[in-house]
Amino acid sequence: MKKAIFYHAGCPVCVAAEDMVVQAIDRSKYDLEIVHFAQHPNRVAEAETAGVKSVPALMLDNQVFHINFGASMADVKASA
Amino acid sequence: MKKAIFYHAGCPVCVAAEDMVVQAIDRSKYDLEIVHFAQHPNRVAEAETAGVKSVPALMLDNQVFHINFGASMADVKASA
Repeated sequence: MKKAIFYHAGCPVCVAAEDMVVQAIDRSKYDLEIVHFAQHPNRVAEAETAGVKSVPALMLDNQVFHINFGASMADVKASA
Repeated sequence: MKKAIFYHAGCPVCVAAEDMVVQAIDRSKYDLEIVHFAQHPNRVAEAETAGVKSVPALMLDNQVFHINFGASMADVKASA
């Protein structure tokens, strides 16, 4: 099982992307974890180290894919 | 079966995103079509109408998800 992490901050763009990821990702291959920064502010540093620049973002196999644009990580940190 | 269309233009960012989409999307739910604009320039208008602003982009259930940023549609049209 590969690890997939979807990082978001609850913004409308994030919610639409979350719906898409939850629906579309192949759960037979990926173990999907959803991290909402407002609920888990301690995960911000890990995400930034991994290369997350904005939310929503999906990390698969240590590659970061930014999906549309909801908020920058600076905005996320300012509101955390 | 739902329809998924991945639009790209062969750029390095596009190729990484294509690998991710091909690997991660649930093929039991989605019929995935990959459209390379250099090979199918006649598909540009359809993509723009659907809301594609840059490549790579994934369209699922008539929603567009821009994944990272490879090139704008203006760049795609200029090189087509």
